[in-house]
Amino acid sequence: MRAPVHAQRDGAVAAGRAPCDTGPVYSLMIHGGAGALSHLSAEERDAYLASLRRITGVGGSLLATGAPALDVVEQCVRQLEDDPLFNAGCGSVLNEVGEVEMDAAIMDGATLRAGSVAAVRLVRNPISLARQVMERTQHVMLMGAGAQEFARVVGAPTEDAAYFLTEKRRRQWEEAKAAGSVVLDLDTVEQPKKLGTVGAVARDAAGNLAAATSTGGIVNKQFGRVGDSPIVGAGVYADRGCAVSCTGYGEQFIRVAVAKTVADLVELRGLDAQGAATEAIRLLVEKVRGIGGVIVVDAAGSCADAFSSGGMIRARVREGAEVQASLD
Amino acid sequence: MRAPVHAQRDGAVAAGRAPCDTGPVYSLMIHGGAGALSHLSAEERDAYLASLRRITGVGGSLLATGAPALDVVEQCVRQLEDDPLFNAGCGSVLNEVGEVEMDAAIMDGATLRAGSVAAVRLVRNPISLARQVMERTQHVMLMGAGAQEFARVVGAPTEDAAYFLTEKRRRQWEEAKAAGSVVLDLDTVEQPKKLGTVGAVARDAAGNLAAATSTGGIVNKQFGRVGDSPIVGAGVYADRGCAVSCTGYGEQFIRVAVAKTVADLVELRGLDAQGAATEAIRLLVEKVRGIGGVIVVDAAGSCADAFSSGGMIRARVREGAEVQASLD
Repeated sequence: MRAPVHAQRDGAVAAGRAPCDTGPVYSLMIHGGAGALSHLSAEERDAYLASLRRITGVGGSLLATGAPALDVVEQCVRQLEDDPLFNAGCGSVLNEVGEVEMDAAIMDGATLRAGSVAAVRLVRNPISLARQVMERTQHVMLMGAGAQEFARVVGAPTEDAAYFLTEKRRRQWEEAKAAGSVVLDLDTVEQPKKLGTVGAVARDAAGNLAAATSTGGIVNKQFGRVGDSPIVGAGVYADRGCAVSCTGYGEQFIRVAVAKTVADLVELRGLDAQGAATEAIRLLVEKVRGIGGVIVVDAAGSCADAFSSGGMIRARVREGAEVQASLD
Repeated sequence: MRAPVHAQRDGAVAAGRAPCDTGPVYSLMIHGGAGALSHLSAEERDAYLASLRRITGVGGSLLATGAPALDVVEQCVRQLEDDPLFNAGCGSVLNEVGEVEMDAAIMDGATLRAGSVAAVRLVRNPISLARQVMERTQHVMLMGAGAQEFARVVGAPTEDAAYFLTEKRRRQWEEAKAAGSVVLDLDTVEQPKKLGTVGAVARDAAGNLAAATSTGGIVNKQFGRVGDSPIVGAGVYADRGCAVSCTGYGEQFIRVAVAKTVADLVELRGLDAQGAATEAIRLLVEKVRGIGGVIVVDAAGSCADAFSSGGMIRARVREGAEVQASLD
């Protein structure tokens, strides 16, 4: 059995980075959103944790067989999209007209290739459509009716509208409509308790990194609002140094370009995953009083999270270690 | 007359940054795209340079009267949008169905507030609509039909379709259609000779920074493709350290998050405008063989540009200095 690799936190130079020649070490981290989670019942907490553990276990098994990080983050996010507990795919929140509109993005750290879709409807797994954008076009980001047409051309599997709707989301939407949430002129929109996004980051046994993020966006959204999830550099990023997926109040994450900030803290400052995650969230709070969290895996396979919200739903697994899931 | 402030290039620490307490110094830089410009006739070169000089002069005069950087970059980009020479506003390239669809984004460095619109039509000045998103909503980015509805709600001035069309763009589009340019499965799309975007960055006398970028996108674009221009962190960024506007092959700029890279080189490495611009373009080339350029102004008021394309259409002015415009 090989020695475990522990990246050390180091604020100055790359010296703290564990060497990569200790051999293949895979690791995976996923999240199911951030927010004030104290309102969750014990049953709800258990349901979230059980789902995360199961999906992380599947992803870890794939990595153990040598699956590429890119395939594993896509697969994990597909399962999070398929689980109605989370605000992505089935179970997404509803926009102003009571429809589900979804955003997703995926990025391959080895090549910096990326794919993203914004405001797609009826596509069962937006993250796989984002992967198709990456694999089959010269573009990174497709949106709206054009992205929908692309889904048709490539034959992306769809579901009828009822598949995506859950009773919980319908109630949430009716409450938001009743409260008259609008976005013009800075009228206050009460922030949702749980800032829903899902994501995954992985390092595979070959040392490649990848990241994926998917979301149904914010309740009662209007005017074709785009959050951070489908924006490369804001809600997702991966390069040779690290892979990042974010969740939180999207506009704040865009204004700070949080995912790229994490990557630059690794590349330009030599921080490891935990150092970069912690510093990026500190900057998010300092600069825009931002609320949310990030998950990060670095080139040495170290997993990390940091968040300014009350909690973050997340799980991780690493070669030779047990799956760990947590909410607080 | 106060002593001129010259930021020095310094690869290591902030020591090279000129102190801000030398008093108010305003500066402005604008661009009208990058590319292989050797095919331009002498008359075309003169026309570009004359337009840039005029617009830079107007912007400089506004800054001299104490106008905020945010207003000045908006005003300069409005004028670039109104000039049919440039691929933004009037004179934008045509999408797959022969229509003009425009993207724009603006960012205030002092507050990190930003506004962005993607794929809007018939709006005379997309940059001012982006400003309205920033000022009047809680969102950063609106797209497509939703952004169009927002334009209607806020009463953004529009023009009929014929206003945006130029004979040059119609011919360009017909050539692209005839060549059967498609984006699926990595069929080659010949890259346009001139990578059209316009942008402006400014430091006002109060020391605040702002950036703005606007474009008609790429010729014959399909599937609701979003380039880097409306993406905060890719085609535009501004904070307290610098303001950045990019032009080039959009997908490459997204994959490297070029604008945020520049800002992080200033914030995390302490580079000045020129050092950060040069290093960001070096990274763009190294990482994705990217083609394009950036303009940058830093907190000391130093202007800089860097590009990997054959040329870049750009001009700058600084308190106490003449307007300089160049193409190569």
